[in-house]
Amino acid sequence: MARDPHCKFCKIIAAELPAAVVYEDQFALGFLDVNPLAEGHLLLIPREHFARLGDMPPTKCSPLASVLPVLSRALIQVTGAEGINVLVNDGAVAGQVVSHAHFHLIPRRQGDGLGFRWMPGKYPEGRAAELAGKLQAVLSRHGD
Amino acid sequence: MARDPHCKFCKIIAAELPAAVVYEDQFALGFLDVNPLAEGHLLLIPREHFARLGDMPPTKCSPLASVLPVLSRALIQVTGAEGINVLVNDGAVAGQVVSHAHFHLIPRRQGDGLGFRWMPGKYPEGRAAELAGKLQAVLSRHGD
Repeated sequence: MARDPHCKFCKIIAAELPAAVVYEDQFALGFLDVNPLAEGHLLLIPREHFARLGDMPPTKCSPLASVLPVLSRALIQVTGAEGINVLVNDGAVAGQVVSHAHFHLIPRRQGDGLGFRWMPGKYPEGRAAELAGKLQAVLSRHGD
Repeated sequence: MARDPHCKFCKIIAAELPAAVVYEDQFALGFLDVNPLAEGHLLLIPREHFARLGDMPPTKCSPLASVLPVLSRALIQVTGAEGINVLVNDGAVAGQVVSHAHFHLIPRRQGDGLGFRWMPGKYPEGRAAELAGKLQAVLSRHGD
């Protein structure tokens, strides 16, 4: 199983760094973020080191993500949150700080530590169809 | 397969509403968000209607999420984005607008339409361990 000796999350998996673990199975580890945006803010990480989301084979992402529903229910039950944001920050521009792909699960309440600047646009006439065509072409070629 | 007759996404799946579809398989449909935060902003939805993330059985979430890596790579290739935010807004407080669980995939660039207010806190002494214990207890009882 790939490991990066300099990766903080690989060290948590190897129990070389402490973490408040709440969930583990053969593929995944779930633990409390030490800098929580809200009580119960979890990180869910693959045991194997993948720097970016796109580096994960589907077979490695799938068992990890299958835990999201049960973790979200447990968080709502234990913290009394009204909702959850699941978030993958993939790449520095997207807010990724630790280069080991991970899911945030952030319990949400009014007035908590997370907010969005959400400024949607509109596609000009024909642009959505053009873009969808390009994406379809790339996706129809993917071999995994 | 469960369907909600009033659900906009169920109507897209039934081809009763149009969408710029980029990906589909037996479990999932991926299409361009009509109110994009960036070019290529995708929604990935289960074909079956589940209002909330926590309503999805793991076996239904897993095949859906296994597509995230390949979609993220295709988006980066086609749009030239530097990163991706994957986001589930679960519950109104978390920004969920359509009550059919869905993943956003948002290509990211400096100065684009998405931003975060990210104000982390710290757990007081002992609180993380207490919370982790409660979550472990709930998760050890989950039967799915």
